Amino acid sequence: MKRVRKFQVTIIGSSEASHLEYDTAYKLGYFIGKNNWVLINGGRTGVMEASSKGAYDAKGICVAILPGELIDSGNIYSTISIPTTIGYARNCITVASGDVIVIVGGKSGTLCELTYAWQYNKPIICCSWIDGVSKDYAGVFVDDKRSVPTIKSEKIEDVYDLLIRMYENFLD
Amino acid sequence: MKRVRKFQVTIIGSSEASHLEYDTAYKLGYFIGKNNWVLINGGRTGVMEASSKGAYDAKGICVAILPGELIDSGNIYSTISIPTTIGYARNCITVASGDVIVIVGGKSGTLCELTYAWQYNKPIICCSWIDGVSKDYAGVFVDDKRSVPTIKSEKIEDVYDLLIRMYENFLD
Amino acid sequence: MKRVRKFQVTIIGSSEASHLEYDTAYKLGYFIGKNNWVLINGGRTGVMEASSKGAYDAKGICVAILPGELIDSGNIYSTISIPTTIGYARNCITVASGDVIVIVGGKSGTLCELTYAWQYNKPIICCSWIDGVSKDYAGVFVDDKRSVPTIKSEKIEDVYDLLIRMYENFLD
Amino acid sequence: MKRVRKFQVTIIGSSEASHLEYDTAYKLGYFIGKNNWVLINGGRTGVMEASSKGAYDAKGICVAILPGELIDSGNIYSTISIPTTIGYARNCITVASGDVIVIVGGKSGTLCELTYAWQYNKPIICCSWIDGVSKDYAGVFVDDKRSVPTIKSEKIEDVYDLLIRMYENFLD
Repeated sequence: MKRVRKFQVTIIGSSEASHLEYDTAYKLGYFIGKNNWVLINGGRTGVMEASSKGAYDAKGICVAILPGELIDSGNIYSTISIPTTIGYARNCITVASGDVIVIVGGKSGTLCELTYAWQYNKPIICCSWIDGVSKDYAGVFVDDKRSVPTIKSEKIEDVYDLLIRMYENFLD
Repeated sequence: MKRVRKFQVTIIGSSEASHLEYDTAYKLGYFIGKNNWVLINGGRTGVMEASSKGAYDAKGICVAILPGELIDSGNIYSTISIPTTIGYARNCITVASGDVIVIVGGKSGTLCELTYAWQYNKPIICCSWIDGVSKDYAGVFVDDKRSVPTIKSEKIEDVYDLLIRMYENFLD
Repeated sequence: MKRVRKFQVTIIGSSEASHLEYDTAYKLGYFIGKNNWVLINGGRTGVMEASSKGAYDAKGICVAILPGELIDSGNIYSTISIPTTIGYARNCITVASGDVIVIVGGKSGTLCELTYAWQYNKPIICCSWIDGVSKDYAGVFVDDKRSVPTIKSEKIEDVYDLLIRMYENFLD
Repeated sequence: MKRVRKFQVTIIGSSEASHLEYDTAYKLGYFIGKNNWVLINGGRTGVMEASSKGAYDAKGICVAILPGELIDSGNIYSTISIPTTIGYARNCITVASGDVIVIVGGKSGTLCELTYAWQYNKPIICCSWIDGVSKDYAGVFVDDKRSVPTIKSEKIEDVYDLLIRMYENFLD
């Protein structure tokens, strides 16, 4: 028998979302939920809340990796709450828990998570049509430690396609 | 609208399980899965594997809080894998992520988790019929920081009853 | 050339110290400072403050391993402040940073640190004449993972002798 | 009485140092040691080793914030070793422990530390004459969360001057 766990997709982005960021994160969360995968995020406001809400509306599972100690300190849409108690050091957990990382906009906190994703050798999909980290770091090598750059996606349908292809790899 | 997350039960115990420990942890995991709650554990062998397998057989959800970096470094029965990357410091996450903690046997690692559960003010149910931490610390005050002691359970049915009662509180 | 680092002694105990605890921790900190070793502790009040003050009065070095983010959130007597930002998960750092651990009284937080010291295979000296963890766990095996028990010290001079002997080992 | 702790300067940079990086980090470590401040770094090779060696040659104190569990897993020049046991999550500790952060070159790991320094609102001095993070992020706003950008230094003497000025602020 093989492992039984589900395909896990981490979405990262700012706790303050623009309309475009909120809408994109919601759709991605919904897509992840519909496919019966697991959404991982940081459990708070903005892009995190939007993706959680999307997964929830699709009757999917969302795991919130929270910085604090309190189990109910995140947004209300997460299915499962993981209060890590370790503050912003939790950024590395959010990223390590994804089979793939999708970046939606993002500021310095998102950049922190991008560097961890790079070091843990995760596939990184950047929504390049959204300003912030996801645009600035789309299709680049963060440094010379990897032979595979981040992936530049031009529209949300491309992200969907990539996720489906990665999911097929995951099943093999 | 209220939070939508599920009731989360953390099971802790040794990575080397006796027959009694394995059997008890399996039954508890199965009970948690059947009730559509979420099982949280440390994701490895022994009591962790047994409870994961129980939840799996009941078609429930189990979240593995792993010490290492690798997403597939746990036992194969977990539904969701959280590789915390922070080593044994992850003990505090396993415990903070439970609405209630159930102890099945256990050695020094379990004792570590018990002290975190005590500090985070979690309800702690000890399977007092099983040697180890769950017997030694059943119905006691670990120190004077709390006014409520650990709970001494004499048999598995009592644990079931306690969990159902706590779940009802959780819903309120 | 060999490593140049100093001999590091971790003192653990409660943030609320009795007179006996405060006095003992002060003397131990002073002894560590006088010997030009490095004192490691949790940086806060009680036993932590007392040992820091002792090291300070002996013109020694004390490193505070703090739970929070703020560099000046500890007691005023530490020479160096390490704000770990990871909350009580920092307990494992306090203990991993000692070549030897000395326990002075202690409650649930100290018990947590004792279990980490046990797992990291550190020599553990218990001040058995002081109530709390240091008395309850003096000269015992916490579980079967180690072949060497904790050390039961009957008086402070015995702790001094043990530390000197361990320091000689450290130099070899 | 005021706090007695010393002024703490964190140096960050790559574990693989060019000649220019090694030389610069060595000189900075030496300067910090000569001034009787405390050098904080990640305890390993490259820029970390160079700065540790500088502090050591100046008879100063260097604290190594190591990712692993083993107290002697760093370079041999550190005075004090803090094995954090939490892997790369330790990046936030290295940065939180500095009153000021100096960046010497650097790749993705350094970029991770820069983002933490930004979030903890630390003064950040970038050696802009050295390729890598210290050049790319010199004198910029990482995002809109702060009103003060990173500091662009053109030569090492400017870094010395800045550190002395910050030290005077620290004393007030």
